[in-house]
Amino acid sequence: MLIVMRPDAVDADIERVLKVIESLGLRGHELPGQSRTAIGITGNRGSVDPANFENLPGVADAIRVTKPYKLVSSDLRPEKSVIKVGNAFIGDGSLAMIAGPCAVENEKQVFDAAEAVAASGAKFFRGGAYKPRTSPYAFQGKGEDGLKILAEVRNQFGLNIVTEAMDEHGVDMVEKYGDCIQIGARNMQNFSLLKYVGKTRKPVLLKRGLSATLEELLLAAEYVMAEGNYDVILCERGIRTFANHARNTLDLSIIPAIRRLSHLPVIVDPSHGTGHNYMVGPLALAGIAAGSDGLIIEVHPQPEKALCDGAQALTTSQYTELFEQTKRIHEAMNIAATAAS
Amino acid sequence: MLIVMRPDAVDADIERVLKVIESLGLRGHELPGQSRTAIGITGNRGSVDPANFENLPGVADAIRVTKPYKLVSSDLRPEKSVIKVGNAFIGDGSLAMIAGPCAVENEKQVFDAAEAVAASGAKFFRGGAYKPRTSPYAFQGKGEDGLKILAEVRNQFGLNIVTEAMDEHGVDMVEKYGDCIQIGARNMQNFSLLKYVGKTRKPVLLKRGLSATLEELLLAAEYVMAEGNYDVILCERGIRTFANHARNTLDLSIIPAIRRLSHLPVIVDPSHGTGHNYMVGPLALAGIAAGSDGLIIEVHPQPEKALCDGAQALTTSQYTELFEQTKRIHEAMNIAATAAS
Amino acid sequence: MLIVMRPDAVDADIERVLKVIESLGLRGHELPGQSRTAIGITGNRGSVDPANFENLPGVADAIRVTKPYKLVSSDLRPEKSVIKVGNAFIGDGSLAMIAGPCAVENEKQVFDAAEAVAASGAKFFRGGAYKPRTSPYAFQGKGEDGLKILAEVRNQFGLNIVTEAMDEHGVDMVEKYGDCIQIGARNMQNFSLLKYVGKTRKPVLLKRGLSATLEELLLAAEYVMAEGNYDVILCERGIRTFANHARNTLDLSIIPAIRRLSHLPVIVDPSHGTGHNYMVGPLALAGIAAGSDGLIIEVHPQPEKALCDGAQALTTSQYTELFEQTKRIHEAMNIAATAAS
Amino acid sequence: MLIVMRPDAVDADIERVLKVIESLGLRGHELPGQSRTAIGITGNRGSVDPANFENLPGVADAIRVTKPYKLVSSDLRPEKSVIKVGNAFIGDGSLAMIAGPCAVENEKQVFDAAEAVAASGAKFFRGGAYKPRTSPYAFQGKGEDGLKILAEVRNQFGLNIVTEAMDEHGVDMVEKYGDCIQIGARNMQNFSLLKYVGKTRKPVLLKRGLSATLEELLLAAEYVMAEGNYDVILCERGIRTFANHARNTLDLSIIPAIRRLSHLPVIVDPSHGTGHNYMVGPLALAGIAAGSDGLIIEVHPQPEKALCDGAQALTTSQYTELFEQTKRIHEAMNIAATAAS
Repeated sequence: MLIVMRPDAVDADIERVLKVIESLGLRGHELPGQSRTAIGITGNRGSVDPANFENLPGVADAIRVTKPYKLVSSDLRPEKSVIKVGNAFIGDGSLAMIAGPCAVENEKQVFDAAEAVAASGAKFFRGGAYKPRTSPYAFQGKGEDGLKILAEVRNQFGLNIVTEAMDEHGVDMVEKYGDCIQIGARNMQNFSLLKYVGKTRKPVLLKRGLSATLEELLLAAEYVMAEGNYDVILCERGIRTFANHARNTLDLSIIPAIRRLSHLPVIVDPSHGTGHNYMVGPLALAGIAAGSDGLIIEVHPQPEKALCDGAQALTTSQYTELFEQTKRIHEAMNIAATAAS
Repeated sequence: MLIVMRPDAVDADIERVLKVIESLGLRGHELPGQSRTAIGITGNRGSVDPANFENLPGVADAIRVTKPYKLVSSDLRPEKSVIKVGNAFIGDGSLAMIAGPCAVENEKQVFDAAEAVAASGAKFFRGGAYKPRTSPYAFQGKGEDGLKILAEVRNQFGLNIVTEAMDEHGVDMVEKYGDCIQIGARNMQNFSLLKYVGKTRKPVLLKRGLSATLEELLLAAEYVMAEGNYDVILCERGIRTFANHARNTLDLSIIPAIRRLSHLPVIVDPSHGTGHNYMVGPLALAGIAAGSDGLIIEVHPQPEKALCDGAQALTTSQYTELFEQTKRIHEAMNIAATAAS
Repeated sequence: MLIVMRPDAVDADIERVLKVIESLGLRGHELPGQSRTAIGITGNRGSVDPANFENLPGVADAIRVTKPYKLVSSDLRPEKSVIKVGNAFIGDGSLAMIAGPCAVENEKQVFDAAEAVAASGAKFFRGGAYKPRTSPYAFQGKGEDGLKILAEVRNQFGLNIVTEAMDEHGVDMVEKYGDCIQIGARNMQNFSLLKYVGKTRKPVLLKRGLSATLEELLLAAEYVMAEGNYDVILCERGIRTFANHARNTLDLSIIPAIRRLSHLPVIVDPSHGTGHNYMVGPLALAGIAAGSDGLIIEVHPQPEKALCDGAQALTTSQYTELFEQTKRIHEAMNIAATAAS
Repeated sequence: MLIVMRPDAVDADIERVLKVIESLGLRGHELPGQSRTAIGITGNRGSVDPANFENLPGVADAIRVTKPYKLVSSDLRPEKSVIKVGNAFIGDGSLAMIAGPCAVENEKQVFDAAEAVAASGAKFFRGGAYKPRTSPYAFQGKGEDGLKILAEVRNQFGLNIVTEAMDEHGVDMVEKYGDCIQIGARNMQNFSLLKYVGKTRKPVLLKRGLSATLEELLLAAEYVMAEGNYDVILCERGIRTFANHARNTLDLSIIPAIRRLSHLPVIVDPSHGTGHNYMVGPLALAGIAAGSDGLIIEVHPQPEKALCDGAQALTTSQYTELFEQTKRIHEAMNIAATAAS
């Protein structure tokens, strides 16, 4: 933390700041400059709250010097993390494809989707048994029965199961039946839940909140990791903006931004990120081209009959064709990367 | 579906309607009004046939509800709801002032603040024992020890306690020690938590999420009410926008919008809504002028030493002066309303 | 660079400073205050050496300005600016009410509105002759014919005319017929237009752009002032956010933020700021309570027949009632301010 | 109203329709397509009676248009428009690369950049002679002198010149020296300027405003086209959101959305769209993968010395490498498209 004093700050102002620093058990270092004085703070283990200083007389600015996160940081771990999910990997340079229906509705729907997903060569299957719905009167998911169907998918098709938990009970259930615990966008800052999944040993797919900054996303991952679970995969799924042609605004610039700051893998959800079937393909390809480690995509054997988010689901044949395209883009990216190195 | 009873309907008529609802596998919510009783039906996936009710004795009307919410709606209850919090009321036309520190830090800090709040004539005290913090390394609150200090404030000063819960355990604790369970902005769509507080019988202060639309806010309240807890107070606390002169953008237009659609009271949080000490006063007055039922304001005896959000806290003397000003604006509003009627 | 003169500096001292500034190829802007005169320097790319000025007679201080704006800044002029518009003032502590129809449609419509506005005691009349419309096929305004009707309103009712210009020709016309040149939100960063109105000597009402930060708004005013026209009134008219219950999100926190940084007056437009008739009243009152110097409100004798923005226009009787309410709030604010001082 | 001619309609049939339109006091816009000609009608306030046209020879259909735009619409012209800029094309399936410095600073800087751009095989050169700057004290561009340098670049390197105009004078100058008139994001709703460029016969590169919806962007293009200039290229350059890791949030979902509604080509500006050198590459590739017709990219021989936006400029060698990568992605896209057809 660096406290920058105003040019008109007097000695008493500086004394006051130094005393507050001392009262916090820290040490202040006065650094006089040509037109203004700056005061450096040392002795802190975590970050210091700038709010302690901003309103003191004579203070122009309180600037965080050290980043507020540690475990997610590339400073701590320069190489990219590779996360094992079931028997496959995310972040190892391959294109991770996680596909399946929004919600588990019944065995036939899930198995039809799983057959297409397995046939495409994807290694991960998605499907929600606990559904966070805006309305209390909307379909809320099939719960443990749904998880049992997903577990059966793993047995029959060898797909690794990624599925959402919304509370502690859900986490226990997903830990029992699934391979990766998804934390949804609306729970990205449900700090109690983050701590709870941090105590499990299943990998966590952490979706960016609708209005989360990059720092908030990284700190949400830090919550999980601070409890000892280092297997976190980040997911860009669109943010809320004024733009109304899509359900959300997919913010692909967060991919290079994450790469610069963190070792964690990041994937893209073009289904929730756009909300429209016809946009899923172009934005999936864009996500790969922007450097994503993978995609999570909604596929439904009969989108028009889906109980949840049918408008954005691909048919199984649309999905199969798209996966072929993403592989071509992924390959072109690798050639480009090899040529550059 | 909404069943509107005739003004001369008797208890037996209401009982009969509730039994029919139950027999259909649905749930009836009786909401008595000044001149008539309405009964909301929840639990239905699709639409309910009005023919089931139209010919029952005492039934005036059976209305298909097209809006996705029911229990929060003015259609169900045209008069404003008045919520009892401890021994005082919110929504009864008085100016509800909820004041206190962001976080409970220690007895002295809390009692100093409480003394000023009680002296000002306010009836509600705020203070967080469980703190949702963006960073896992920031002060997370004192937990049950903090709640005990707050309970002591009620005993000594007669103030009613409003305090946040972040998870089921927290709800149990707040139910035990406090008078009103606050659900924070980041948990506004933590649907499991909403259902859980819906099963308590303590009033709920529901803060608008950082990127929540009006409909999402009302549906979050609906989640609580659908479980049988009708005592919900809404709170505007600023939304996330590009504007960077304030921590959040306080959206006061939601007050007339809520009035038009819902019977629930709504208050304003100018402290989180702006994030700056010097903005709290002007926006508090603006909130009252926009028609708010009250305010929730952060007061700290020594803001520069606050462990949390000191930049936005008022000193006790700033708070006392502001409360006097808000009373003058509230009075001017009442004169205006009386003149208009 | 800002040169602050001593309270006892004489005219010759000021002249000398201005000449030194000129000799450096820069431009000096004299801004007399209550107790002292300040001189802003513009035209410099990098920093100016304070040594050029510090030893000149009558100079109290030479301050390096780090903020990107100068002429709008409170550093330059600590007292609030009072802007003369026709024969009345904005920013002098009175409540400036600017009312009238969105667009000038015909004589009868304008005169009916003007009669109500004049009868209410307001001193300013609004009405657009050049209309910025999203669609090229929407009504684009009556041009000079419309301005002639507005000029007739001034003659008959003594109201000062505030009306928009969209290009250089429009500025010339408004300069001829009106009293205050309005620059619309969509032109807030039309820098060529800002420079052009900076060369006129009519006051400018500058509306905040839909996605303008505070700094961008102040710099837009700086564009006008840097050309020598210091009579700028700022206007908050709502920003674009995800919130969809109102047409825009009225951001009242910008009022205290402007007060902190700038001497320019600021008014509020609750009509465009909300887009809904029923929200105009509450947000107008909120604007006054937040410290606004005035309001600009759309009034139409027959809103349902308006060619432009009828949904947000008040009827003449709604307007009259609202103005009475705003006066009461404004009075309560003044009592509060007096009590505080 | 849209008149769709039959595939076998002859010129005389078209003439006849245009005359009827004229006789109604309206304006007809002939837009020949591959298989049929469509005629858009503008100038009407309300709806036009289809009966006027339905029975004329050669008329296939007369469609009431409910969307607020007509000339930009795919309904009018199902095939994509190909725009000729100087001696090259945008929208013809090739990858249009427009590269060059933010601002024209001097001959050496421009020629060094142009040499690299020409060597890469790009056909378009960008560079600003009139610069819209947030601050009046920032470098405002070299004006006509800058345009002369750009004209010299065309002569020496055969590159087609894309450069911005901010007002009518600037449009006249760019028409004289350049090949394509750029309208910047801040002027997207400067309707007077849009009408003015609509009267020129140079192609227009129209950048999306910082808070423009898709409909507003299309209507801005409609303003240009309604004046008779049909050569409009749209450009996504990032929108303003709360996200602070990039200067703007590049909204690539607008590309498939434009494709669905309009025949106009659309390109992507990853330089302004991100504001950071290290993000330009990933987002450029993502833009191509999302289906963009091209890119506009800032290149500077010495970014660290740039007078404008140096932080986002690529060095010439970074640019050259990136262009090679974009070609690989563009090729992979074409293979995918061919495989799909």
